[in-house]
Amino acid sequence: SFHRRVLPPSGIAFASTRGRELFAEALAAGTLHCFFKLIEQFCTQAEPAYCGLGTLVMVLNALDIDPGRTWKGPWRWFHEGMLDCCEPLEDIRRRGITFDKLACLARCNGAAVRSVCSGDNAACCGGSSGRVHRFLVVSYSRREFGQTGDGHFSPVGGYHAGSDSVLLLDVARFKYPPHWVGLRALWRALCRTDPDTGKTRGYLLLSARKPGAP
Amino acid sequence: SFHRRVLPPSGIAFASTRGRELFAEALAAGTLHCFFKLIEQFCTQAEPAYCGLGTLVMVLNALDIDPGRTWKGPWRWFHEGMLDCCEPLEDIRRRGITFDKLACLARCNGAAVRSVCSGDNAACCGGSSGRVHRFLVVSYSRREFGQTGDGHFSPVGGYHAGSDSVLLLDVARFKYPPHWVGLRALWRALCRTDPDTGKTRGYLLLSARKPGAP
Repeated sequence: SFHRRVLPPSGIAFASTRGRELFAEALAAGTLHCFFKLIEQFCTQAEPAYCGLGTLVMVLNALDIDPGRTWKGPWRWFHEGMLDCCEPLEDIRRRGITFDKLACLARCNGAAVRSVCSGDNAACCGGSSGRVHRFLVVSYSRREFGQTGDGHFSPVGGYHAGSDSVLLLDVARFKYPPHWVGLRALWRALCRTDPDTGKTRGYLLLSARKPGAP
Repeated sequence: SFHRRVLPPSGIAFASTRGRELFAEALAAGTLHCFFKLIEQFCTQAEPAYCGLGTLVMVLNALDIDPGRTWKGPWRWFHEGMLDCCEPLEDIRRRGITFDKLACLARCNGAAVRSVCSGDNAACCGGSSGRVHRFLVVSYSRREFGQTGDGHFSPVGGYHAGSDSVLLLDVARFKYPPHWVGLRALWRALCRTDPDTGKTRGYLLLSARKPGAP
C-alpha cells in the first residue's frame, strides 16, 4: 500500500517554496481569480476511480448551484454519491467516467457546459485567466507528466504567466498534492488518446446555468 | 432544508472582495505560512456533527502523517470514518465530540498535541503566525459570531495583522464559506462554556510526532 507518491519533476508542488513563489506572482498578476471559489471546495475524491465525480462536485459547489435535494441532515449540497443520473455509480467506481459522460452529468446538475475535445484543436485554457463563476476542468493523461496511472480529471485553479503554467487542483490528494504544470505539456496530455473511448481528451468550461437553482 | 446560510457580518468571506484583500495583505506580510498545507486538505465534514473529525482529518493529512492503515484501494490516508479509537463514531455522529476527546484522538493518530483550555488564560493564537507543520485548531461557540448552531471546531488558516483577524477554514462548507473573524471575538467564543461539559473551550496546537509514521 502507499502513503502518497512522490510528485515527478514535471510538476511543482503548490506548497513548496517554488510553488508559493508562483502563487504569489500569479496572485499579484490577477490570474488566480478562479482559485478562491474553487479552493473553498477542494476535496479528496471519495473513491479511487472518482476523479471525475470529485472534480465535478468541487465545481458545482464552487458555482454555488443548489442541488435541489438534501445531502445529509437538512443540507442541500453536492456529494459524489448524488451524481448517479448519467451512469450507474457502481460502473464509475469500477471504471471511472468518460469525458462525454462527465459533461452530461454537469448539464444534468445545473451547469452550463462548453465541452471542447482536444481534437477540435481549439485554443486551450483561455478560461484559466480565471473569471469567477466559470471554471475549467481538464481531462488528460497522467502519463505525459510521468505520474502513475493514466486518465484523470482536474479543475484548474489558476495561471502563472511567467512560467506559462497552470495550477491543477488534483482531487487524488492521497496520491499527489496540487501542483503547477506547463500549459504546453498539459495540452499534449489532453491530446493523448483515451484507450477506453479511442478519442482524445479535452476540457470543459463550466458555469452556473442559473445561480442558486438547478 | 437549506442551501447554505448567509454569513453574519461578524465574518468576512474568504472569496469576497474584502476577503481577497485581507488574503493578499496577509500573504505579503508572511502570516499565511500555515495556509498552504492546510488548504491542500480542506474538506467538508462527512456528517453534520463531525466538525471535530473533519477538522482533525484536515490537520493529520496536512501534517503528512501516515495513518499506517489503508483507506480505500491501496492508499493509506486519513478519513473521518477511521477515527474510531477514543469514542464510538455513532456517538460522535449524534452528539459531536468534546475538546478533550478530540485531543485524545489527535494523540492516538500520531500528532503531538498541546491542548490549552481557555480557562488557562493563555495567550491564544500565537500559533496562527503560521509555522508550517504546526497547526492551530480552535474549539468555540458559533453564537459569539451570530452564526446558527453552537459548539464548533475549525482549523486556523492564517492571520491578518492590520485587522487583527484570523482565517477560519470552516469544514461545515454546506453552511458557511471560510471566513475571517476578529481575534478578540474568537477568544470570547473560546471562553464560552460548553453546555455538554460545563467547561470553557480552548485550542489545540498540533504537530507531527514523527513525520511519516503514526
